[in-house]
Amino acid sequence: MITAVEGVKCYGIKEGKNGLGIVVCKGKVAGVFTKNRFKAAPVVITQEHVKYGEIEGIIVNSGNANAFTGEEGLRNAKRMAELLAKKLKVPIHKIAVASTGVIGVQLDMEWIESKFEEVFANLGTSREHALSFAKSIMTTDSFPKECLIRDRFTIAGVAKGAGMIAPNMATMLAFIFTDADFEPEELRDMLRKAVDRSFNVTVVDGDTSTNDMVLLIATGKKKVDRRIFEKRLTEVCMDLAKKIARDGEGATKFVEIRVEGAKNDEDAFKAAKTVASSLLVKTAIFGNDPNWGRIVAALGYSGVEVSENLDLSIEGFKDGNAVGSVDLVRNGRSMTNENKAREIMEKSDEILLKIDLKVGKGKGYAFGCDLSYEYVRINSEYTT
Amino acid sequence: MITAVEGVKCYGIKEGKNGLGIVVCKGKVAGVFTKNRFKAAPVVITQEHVKYGEIEGIIVNSGNANAFTGEEGLRNAKRMAELLAKKLKVPIHKIAVASTGVIGVQLDMEWIESKFEEVFANLGTSREHALSFAKSIMTTDSFPKECLIRDRFTIAGVAKGAGMIAPNMATMLAFIFTDADFEPEELRDMLRKAVDRSFNVTVVDGDTSTNDMVLLIATGKKKVDRRIFEKRLTEVCMDLAKKIARDGEGATKFVEIRVEGAKNDEDAFKAAKTVASSLLVKTAIFGNDPNWGRIVAALGYSGVEVSENLDLSIEGFKDGNAVGSVDLVRNGRSMTNENKAREIMEKSDEILLKIDLKVGKGKGYAFGCDLSYEYVRINSEYTT
Repeated sequence: MITAVEGVKCYGIKEGKNGLGIVVCKGKVAGVFTKNRFKAAPVVITQEHVKYGEIEGIIVNSGNANAFTGEEGLRNAKRMAELLAKKLKVPIHKIAVASTGVIGVQLDMEWIESKFEEVFANLGTSREHALSFAKSIMTTDSFPKECLIRDRFTIAGVAKGAGMIAPNMATMLAFIFTDADFEPEELRDMLRKAVDRSFNVTVVDGDTSTNDMVLLIATGKKKVDRRIFEKRLTEVCMDLAKKIARDGEGATKFVEIRVEGAKNDEDAFKAAKTVASSLLVKTAIFGNDPNWGRIVAALGYSGVEVSENLDLSIEGFKDGNAVGSVDLVRNGRSMTNENKAREIMEKSDEILLKIDLKVGKGKGYAFGCDLSYEYVRINSEYTT
Repeated sequence: MITAVEGVKCYGIKEGKNGLGIVVCKGKVAGVFTKNRFKAAPVVITQEHVKYGEIEGIIVNSGNANAFTGEEGLRNAKRMAELLAKKLKVPIHKIAVASTGVIGVQLDMEWIESKFEEVFANLGTSREHALSFAKSIMTTDSFPKECLIRDRFTIAGVAKGAGMIAPNMATMLAFIFTDADFEPEELRDMLRKAVDRSFNVTVVDGDTSTNDMVLLIATGKKKVDRRIFEKRLTEVCMDLAKKIARDGEGATKFVEIRVEGAKNDEDAFKAAKTVASSLLVKTAIFGNDPNWGRIVAALGYSGVEVSENLDLSIEGFKDGNAVGSVDLVRNGRSMTNENKAREIMEKSDEILLKIDLKVGKGKGYAFGCDLSYEYVRINSEYTT
C-alpha cells in the first residue's frame, strides 16, 4: 500500500472499463518510459514534466491509452494534468499523467472531468485509499498489484499490467514511493537498474506498449545508504514484475526461468528471456507437458553461447509451497523423468526452470507465464 | 509435384505419427540450414554432405526430429543416409538426410529400417508418388505443400511446416528440384536470396527450430538465364512459404503484411515481420477485430523509422476472391471504418494489411496467420 509512505494521499474509482485515480505526493522524481516509437500522449507529457525533477501529484486513467491520438490527445493529456495542478495550486509540470487501455481512441474527457472532483474530494491515507487507487488503474488485470518494504525507510509501489507485456518494458504502469532522500539523477540511475532487472525481464506476450511508465517519487524525509536503497528498490520492482507475470492475461501458471553458467550475466538474462518468450514453451507449460526439447530449442536460437552438455531441471510450487523438483536434462542427456515432471506441473501454480548453460559464470533470470485458451479469448474479444 | 522434374523419383509412407520418404534425384545441390545453435543430427550430417556439391538422394523421416540426441543421434542420421547410399551404390555423402518432429527422443531405427525397403521399392514418377512423399514428411500440417512452375525449364518444390515457424527460418523442410543447369555456388547464392524473401519472412509462432532445411537440387539438363531462374525460384519459395503460413497451427486466416514508404527495404521487411509476429495483432485478427492500435503499436516497437502520418488499410479475400477493402488509418488519423473492416474480416480467410510508413521508398512484406484456441490446443497437447 503506497499510503504507507508518509505524505502519500490517494484515491481512485472504476466504472465499467473506465477508471480514474489520483495520487498526491510531493517529492523528487525519476521515470523510465516505453521505448516504443509511438509514445502515448501522457508519456510525452510526463517525460517532459519529470525533467523538472520534482512532482506533487499523479493523475491516471484506465480504459483508454490516449495513444496515437495526435494533437487532440496531447491537449487531453495536458488537460488532465491541469485539472490536478489547479487544485493543488502548482505549475502544470508538477503533475505526472498516465493512461492505459485501448489505442487510437480519443479520451472521454467529459467522463474524466465529471469524475475528477469526486476522486479528488476522497483522497486519503488509509489502506482502503491505497487499494482504491490500485484498482482504478487496472485494465485486464485480475488483481491489484502492490508491494511494501519497510527497512529503516519505506518503499511502496503499485502497478498494473497483464497483457502487452514485453521486455522494454512490460505494458504497465508502476508508481513507487519512498521517504528516502535522493536527488533526481540518483533516483533515475537506481530506477533504470532496478527496471532492467525486473520489469524488463518480464514477458507475457512480447508486445511493447505505447504507454509503459515507471515513476519513482522520493519525499526526502530520510537519509538512506544508496546501496541499501538500490537493493530494496530492485526487490520492490521484482515483486511487482512477478505479480504482473502471475496475472498475465489468461495465465494459469507463473513461470520463472533461472539461468546460470552463461558466458556473462547479459547472456544469461537473454537466454532466460528467450525461453520465457517462446510460445511453444508457454503452451507446453499450459498443457503440463515437460517438453524440454522446446526449452532447449529456444536456448539454441537465443543467440547466446550454450553447451550441448547443459543441465535443466524443473521445480513446482503451489500457493508458495514446494511441490517437488526433478532433473529433465543432465549433461545434455534426457533424464527421462517426464512422468514425474508432468505430475509436479499438474499440481503447481508456479514453475521454476533452472538451466545451467555450462559455458561460464553468468547468471540471470526472467519472469513469465503460460499461454492458455483464455489469453486468446481475452485478446480476440478485447475491443468488441 | 516434384516428379514433374525429369529425373526425380520418390515415394513416402505415413504410419500414425511416423513417416518415411525418399527422393532419388542426381544433381548439383545447395542448402540453407537452421541458425539454431542446437542443430539436429540430420542437419549436421546434411550440411557436410551438401558441401560436396552433388547428391543423388534424400531420405526424410517425420515424427521425430532427431535433435538433441547426442552421438547416438548422429549415428542414426548417418545410418539413414547409409541405407539409401547402399541401395544407390553411391558414397554416403551423396545422400541428404532430414528429420522433423519431437526433440530429444532417439529415432525408432527399427521402424525406419523395417519400412525402408517398402518405400524404396515403390519409388516412381507419377503425381501419386509426388503426393505420397509430400504427405510422408508432414507433422502437424493439415495439407501437403507443393509448388510447380514451368517456364522453358521446370522448378518444383515440396515443403512441410505448420508450427515453430519463425524468420530464420520457419520450422520447415523444403526440397526444390529443377532441370536447370547451375553450379553449386550459383545455386547457393540464389537459394539464400530466395529464402530470405520467402521462408525468412514467414512467422507462425516465432520459434526457430533445430531442424530447418531447404535444399535445391538442379539436374542440369537445361541452360537457363540466371536472372529468370532467380525470379522463378523466389516465386516457388514464396508460394511454399505462404502455404506454410496458411497452414499455421490452428490458423483460421492467412495474413500478408505489405509495407511501403520505409527508409529502406530492410526496414520495410523488419516492420512487416514485427506486425506478423505480434500476438496481439494475431489474436485480434482471429477475433475479426480491426484493432489498428495494436498494429501501430507493433510498428512503434519494430525499431524502424516510422511517421505518425502513416497509412494503414485492410483487404479481405475468401477462396482467393476479393471480399472488400477499407482504410483504417489515413495520414495518422483513424478513419473510423471499424464496422466495415470487421464485416470484411468476418467473411475472409485471407487478410492483407497494407501499411505506408511515409518515411522513404523501402518496400517489404511478411506472411503469417492468426492465433487461435486451436494453436494453444495443438501445442499444449503435442507430446501427450
